[in-house]
Amino acid sequence: MIYMHDDEQTDDLLVKNLKILQKKNGFRYGTDAVLLSDFAGRNIKGSVLDLCSGTAIVPLLLSVRENISKISALEIQPDIADMAKRSVMLNKLEHKIDMVCGDLKNADSIFAKKSFDAVTCNPPYMKVGGAVTNSSDTKIISRHEVCCTLDDVIAVSRKMLKNQGRLFMVHKPNRLAEIIHTMCIHHIEPKHMRLVYAHKGKEPSLVLIEGLSGGKSEMRIDPPLYIFGENGKYSEELKKIYHMQ
Amino acid sequence: MIYMHDDEQTDDLLVKNLKILQKKNGFRYGTDAVLLSDFAGRNIKGSVLDLCSGTAIVPLLLSVRENISKISALEIQPDIADMAKRSVMLNKLEHKIDMVCGDLKNADSIFAKKSFDAVTCNPPYMKVGGAVTNSSDTKIISRHEVCCTLDDVIAVSRKMLKNQGRLFMVHKPNRLAEIIHTMCIHHIEPKHMRLVYAHKGKEPSLVLIEGLSGGKSEMRIDPPLYIFGENGKYSEELKKIYHMQ
Repeated sequence: MIYMHDDEQTDDLLVKNLKILQKKNGFRYGTDAVLLSDFAGRNIKGSVLDLCSGTAIVPLLLSVRENISKISALEIQPDIADMAKRSVMLNKLEHKIDMVCGDLKNADSIFAKKSFDAVTCNPPYMKVGGAVTNSSDTKIISRHEVCCTLDDVIAVSRKMLKNQGRLFMVHKPNRLAEIIHTMCIHHIEPKHMRLVYAHKGKEPSLVLIEGLSGGKSEMRIDPPLYIFGENGKYSEELKKIYHMQ
Repeated sequence: MIYMHDDEQTDDLLVKNLKILQKKNGFRYGTDAVLLSDFAGRNIKGSVLDLCSGTAIVPLLLSVRENISKISALEIQPDIADMAKRSVMLNKLEHKIDMVCGDLKNADSIFAKKSFDAVTCNPPYMKVGGAVTNSSDTKIISRHEVCCTLDDVIAVSRKMLKNQGRLFMVHKPNRLAEIIHTMCIHHIEPKHMRLVYAHKGKEPSLVLIEGLSGGKSEMRIDPPLYIFGENGKYSEELKKIYHMQ
């Protein structure tokens, strides 16, 4: 058994008996992390570095993929990184997932440069405005660019990826132009994209994007991914991604 | 009556009795131009410069919009520009459409710089490879970047647009990253995008994109536009755009 704090609980990930520790109130993984893990997991071979790793949801979900040899993960918040490490232990995955508490801006002093086949990241989505609120709050750090910006994430990815390594990211569609422009500046060429829509006829709520470090310009866009079907229930595709069927 | 060559015919545009001259075989407008005119026409107020104007299909379709005061148009191929001028005369639209034969790279010596509220462009989609085939062929010039590149189109748009003027373009989704990156480099911020799909469940065939000259980073993505419905016939939305109903 592993140690658990009073404000933590274990939840079932519905795949190969995986479990995850989460805060009862507050810091919990979202659909975005599950969609990113599916989008990336289908396409990765070799070693992965997961940035902004949080509860380690992405490393845990990627760990079941046979083509993935090893997952290193960085989370800046000590209490969340500690909870994530205990999740790894709970699943007896210490041999496959190396969970480290650290700042991604120092990734190249923690892990070997240009050594990863892939980077995954579910970063904070929102820019920090003039008035930074309580920047020590876990939710704020995970949602706002208090500790790292989009440019930081992409610059670090370029440093850590092998040439022809791949960056997989989930983000908000309203920042798509900035994401693509920043990737191009750092020579991670956007090659593949999928927009995620909650409902048909509405604007997209998320974007999944894959870039190739040192790649040439040419991209593929998938058909839309719908979270809900026309009957208001989860779509068949989402149920498959969540292993509900 | 206007002069017509033997290889030309007039076609009905199905809106306000507009007609267009086209070659019987070869150079004819496509769905992309109609979708661009609809996408741009809804959002333009004031003056427009249409680049790579071809048959003048975009100026003709924009001419019915009451919010548009004046349309200037550039086409590099003399025979096509001549046919387009005769289309403008056929519709008695000389007071609203100024069709000019010229190279868009010289646009700032033909029209006043920073004078347009909007630029529209249905550019050649394909890069020129190592072996340029018959570069004087009308179809090749309209489809391949023989006479202008994506970078030329966007750089010229920036020169010709007023500050806060808008560029509307239709292009191929496989070049989306390059389009967005090039727009950002030239300070035309991508603000609005729509992907066009022939059929549900397939990859998109076109992208409609709107940029704001001197704009700030933040973009909106529309729901998908489908050309065909599930019954294999034109979708209701496409029929509205084509004034078929």
